[in-house]
Amino acid sequence: MFKTRIYYQDTDAGGVVYFANYLKFVEKSWFEFLSSIGIFLPEWEKKDTYLIVKTVHLDLIDKVRYGELITIKTSVKKVKNAYFILYHEIFRDEKITTKIETTMVCINSKGRPKRIPEDFKERLLKTM
Amino acid sequence: MFKTRIYYQDTDAGGVVYFANYLKFVEKSWFEFLSSIGIFLPEWEKKDTYLIVKTVHLDLIDKVRYGELITIKTSVKKVKNAYFILYHEIFRDEKITTKIETTMVCINSKGRPKRIPEDFKERLLKTM
Amino acid sequence: MFKTRIYYQDTDAGGVVYFANYLKFVEKSWFEFLSSIGIFLPEWEKKDTYLIVKTVHLDLIDKVRYGELITIKTSVKKVKNAYFILYHEIFRDEKITTKIETTMVCINSKGRPKRIPEDFKERLLKTM
Amino acid sequence: MFKTRIYYQDTDAGGVVYFANYLKFVEKSWFEFLSSIGIFLPEWEKKDTYLIVKTVHLDLIDKVRYGELITIKTSVKKVKNAYFILYHEIFRDEKITTKIETTMVCINSKGRPKRIPEDFKERLLKTM
Repeated sequence: MFKTRIYYQDTDAGGVVYFANYLKFVEKSWFEFLSSIGIFLPEWEKKDTYLIVKTVHLDLIDKVRYGELITIKTSVKKVKNAYFILYHEIFRDEKITTKIETTMVCINSKGRPKRIPEDFKERLLKTM
Repeated sequence: MFKTRIYYQDTDAGGVVYFANYLKFVEKSWFEFLSSIGIFLPEWEKKDTYLIVKTVHLDLIDKVRYGELITIKTSVKKVKNAYFILYHEIFRDEKITTKIETTMVCINSKGRPKRIPEDFKERLLKTM
Repeated sequence: MFKTRIYYQDTDAGGVVYFANYLKFVEKSWFEFLSSIGIFLPEWEKKDTYLIVKTVHLDLIDKVRYGELITIKTSVKKVKNAYFILYHEIFRDEKITTKIETTMVCINSKGRPKRIPEDFKERLLKTM
Repeated sequence: MFKTRIYYQDTDAGGVVYFANYLKFVEKSWFEFLSSIGIFLPEWEKKDTYLIVKTVHLDLIDKVRYGELITIKTSVKKVKNAYFILYHEIFRDEKITTKIETTMVCINSKGRPKRIPEDFKERLLKTM
């Protein structure tokens, strides 16, 4: 669960959060979510495992404005050998404003896909 | 068709374009695409018609790196009364690197959804 | 005092924080600093007072990397009728990494400069 | 000379370009300026020379809005062994809107400062 305020930098001239910036909130949320279950991404990079995004589905339900506070909740939706799917909901107060699904894959430092390491995978599965 | 180089600002510590930044390239591409068919968005705002994104599907096929040149091609996939769908492909040389679909809706200055204005809609349909 | 972690979105292909992004950390810091002394910027906008940046001096002393935690400390350096100067220091652990000075002015909704409102100004002065 | 339009992504809820984004325009301008005098930065990185920003002075003179076109002009102001200074002016039509000065230094892949390579330096000097 990641909380942030909306600052000017997150908004656009339409007066609301710029659509691509929801993905930035989501990156922060998955980083902290994974960290909370013992997967600290910078440590995994030292073991030649990098996490990248393969697909994104973004559904904008309600606008979010400058000065407001949002909460992003990340959970694991599916875990396979080659990828896993995270599901993210962005709330303002109790109201959902955005739903995002990201498919994540692991690669090595050369950019080649690799299986999700066992320990990494088990930690994901335990949350389901 | 929108062309741009990849600068440091577009990349991340993984050495490639940050995933959310593909959506920024796409905004530039749809703005210029619409402009090329006679839909200049800032003009429509003066007529109380604002274009916003409702959903995004992003599929990352190949990485793009610092200094490289990309081309974004935007086309109209579907036009309904209440929304339309744009399809965007990002190429490096002849190779496709990213596919993005965005569902767009029109709102007024109060944020209420509105039908796509007739002239706007016809210009979209003419490209199909 | 504003704390944040460095995420991929803050970095570039050089492996460190992209230079312009330090200004984004600083916006968050001044927003929360002003809020902590009773100046909640979105409230002031309802009273037709908008805060904008006039000048920036940015001095990059040491790099900051992905996954690291930083603290930004904002303080008031000078207060005049027409502008005020904020000073921001960014620390990683106890070590200073960046110094930033921003000159701020107030404008109305039409973009015209205005004197800093008395209550706003007094709250700034009280911190010095 | 680098030209761009202002898109939503460049603006904030104040309706104008977000102050930090001027630095992004400037990065694009210096990249293309250096490229035009034979300094292609990605090539220099292969020779273990990375260009980074040491200081920035940013002076915001006039606002720039969504849909407008700007031109950024970059020139060399000073060249020393250890650093050089670039000066950037952002114009909308013929009117200057922003002045920016950036001090640039060269580092190697380990982040250590290095003298500006001779060929690099000569190309800078020739423009003055």
